[in-house]
Amino acid sequence: MSEDCGISLEELQLAARNHGMPLEALREAITPIGLHYLLIHYDIPQVDVQTWRLEVDGRVRTELSLDLDAIRALPSHEVIATMECAGNGRARLAPRPVSQPWLLEAVGTGRWRGARLRDLLDQAGVDPETAEVLFTGLDRGIENDEEQFFQRSLTLADAALPEVLLAYELNGVPLPPQHGFPLRLLVPGWYGMTNVKWLTRITLLAEPFTGYQQARGYRLRQNEEDDGEPLSRIYPRALMVPPGIPDFMTRERTVPAGKVTIEGRAWSGHAPVAAVEVSTDDGATWQTAELEPPELGPWAWRSWSYDWNATEPGPHVLACRARDEAGNAQSSEQQWNVGGYANNEVQRVVVTVA
Amino acid sequence: MSEDCGISLEELQLAARNHGMPLEALREAITPIGLHYLLIHYDIPQVDVQTWRLEVDGRVRTELSLDLDAIRALPSHEVIATMECAGNGRARLAPRPVSQPWLLEAVGTGRWRGARLRDLLDQAGVDPETAEVLFTGLDRGIENDEEQFFQRSLTLADAALPEVLLAYELNGVPLPPQHGFPLRLLVPGWYGMTNVKWLTRITLLAEPFTGYQQARGYRLRQNEEDDGEPLSRIYPRALMVPPGIPDFMTRERTVPAGKVTIEGRAWSGHAPVAAVEVSTDDGATWQTAELEPPELGPWAWRSWSYDWNATEPGPHVLACRARDEAGNAQSSEQQWNVGGYANNEVQRVVVTVA
Repeated sequence: MSEDCGISLEELQLAARNHGMPLEALREAITPIGLHYLLIHYDIPQVDVQTWRLEVDGRVRTELSLDLDAIRALPSHEVIATMECAGNGRARLAPRPVSQPWLLEAVGTGRWRGARLRDLLDQAGVDPETAEVLFTGLDRGIENDEEQFFQRSLTLADAALPEVLLAYELNGVPLPPQHGFPLRLLVPGWYGMTNVKWLTRITLLAEPFTGYQQARGYRLRQNEEDDGEPLSRIYPRALMVPPGIPDFMTRERTVPAGKVTIEGRAWSGHAPVAAVEVSTDDGATWQTAELEPPELGPWAWRSWSYDWNATEPGPHVLACRARDEAGNAQSSEQQWNVGGYANNEVQRVVVTVA
Repeated sequence: MSEDCGISLEELQLAARNHGMPLEALREAITPIGLHYLLIHYDIPQVDVQTWRLEVDGRVRTELSLDLDAIRALPSHEVIATMECAGNGRARLAPRPVSQPWLLEAVGTGRWRGARLRDLLDQAGVDPETAEVLFTGLDRGIENDEEQFFQRSLTLADAALPEVLLAYELNGVPLPPQHGFPLRLLVPGWYGMTNVKWLTRITLLAEPFTGYQQARGYRLRQNEEDDGEPLSRIYPRALMVPPGIPDFMTRERTVPAGKVTIEGRAWSGHAPVAAVEVSTDDGATWQTAELEPPELGPWAWRSWSYDWNATEPGPHVLACRARDEAGNAQSSEQQWNVGGYANNEVQRVVVTVA
């Protein structure tokens, strides 16, 4: 863990802005504001809610221009959703794709409240020829040498799912600026880039959107020439609360000998979590962890725990892995690709029994 | 900005946990929760407020054991304070001291509410022989090969200052876990390490405290043998909101030609800010910025602005610097020391006029 991994100043600049969830916060069912991960492509825009409007245009019967009160007037729904950055695990890849250097912490679970997107689409009246729904945020910058607002699309079928919200509250308070004030898209089960923040425009398109974040970014590409497959739903992952106490600098852990309850959370955006397994011998053998019921609903992580009888002094490598009911699993090997996405290699935590 | 600066995996682990304030948040007078910087030595402890108590012991007439309601029953005071990590600017030093690799973002301004520490000390009755007041937090870990709770002390004179609070609210809500729930020390004007989080014990000592964080950490040392001077109050700094829009990866900025209002905040824990100056030619010449009145009180940053007539296309290096009424100033050169503390070298922002 002490070798120089050659993180560049550019990557450090991103790491200083965007932040992960310290893994001890896995103890909290709902991630407190300020501990949820954040990835902001450009700058946090300054929004005056008095003049802000959500525009709905493109292939609609009636173009709309709505203030926040109009959106709050729609029927309100709450969804507890685990959100993860598609780049989580990127900094553990070798060779390391250069971008935001996430280790494992780019996750969080929020209690989101908002209106259903499909209620808004019904109000506008969708042209039957519509292929996709395009979402435009107010955050603006340069990426791949193109000046752009952050934009992503969904197929009309995905956009119409009942769990898809136009969210204006997080954990019972108005969205904080860094989470998209005053309004963001929430697509439970999908990687973070889908959940467009500072939403300003929804455009119904007859053809698929081909902007940078859809056609080039956020795709699983094996080389620069590869078009790749688009990222969508979150692959399974289990993470543990690192047991014991840390060394400040190395983050290496120490626990007293005896029973150690290893606990954590597991999630998948594809299907319910089927099982979590724990290894206390660096993956040589695996034991089934106790998986709690899905108390937070279908879109949130689930609690798990495993009692480890830590009798042998010295260092031990703990690991955990999840699989889901659709057959997706975690591997002990890295999932390398050009963008460094969806690397759900199992977590390893070195713990010294003292 | 693209050279490999060799940040190690250990430093990256710290950067992924501890987070800075994205500099566009300088626009906000009070930093929203989640954007204020965070430096947590060990883990965020899990605290059950029902069983939590603040113990007051040592050289007191009456030992106290108080629940949160008892502290809330003391007269309540609000202080708006700018807090900065003593290690802010560390990653810009060469050679770079290895620890949390802050660039410039380790700052934030909170609206803190709590009881005056001196009211609590009066209640306990302080022995006249007391030299120092020791503060112990619940966060526990290993540092310098010693297992420890995070501990720092103040002289009795500093502890009795009227602005020193036992804070239980930030920005109008109970302290979030990451800011020290349920109670932390707040010492306005001092670097962050002074403001002990997850406070569990206050001990009055006849002799100065010689624990690691006081006698070895957080001192300005020129070499390993040097005992160094202890860090205390924050040296002046001005930071600007980076103008224009960023490139996602490099964070380099672009602005359209014309009038550009450069705005930011400036602070010092030693004395009121006397002046802020701006350079648009990489420090060759400096102009006086307009400094707003101290609207947030004596312990918070002050707003400043400067109108730049950006007529010449191409890259420009902007810089800003503050000085205070006690004669402390910022330098264009790094302030190197073993721990990488108090480096208030001026901020430089490269902006391309397009």
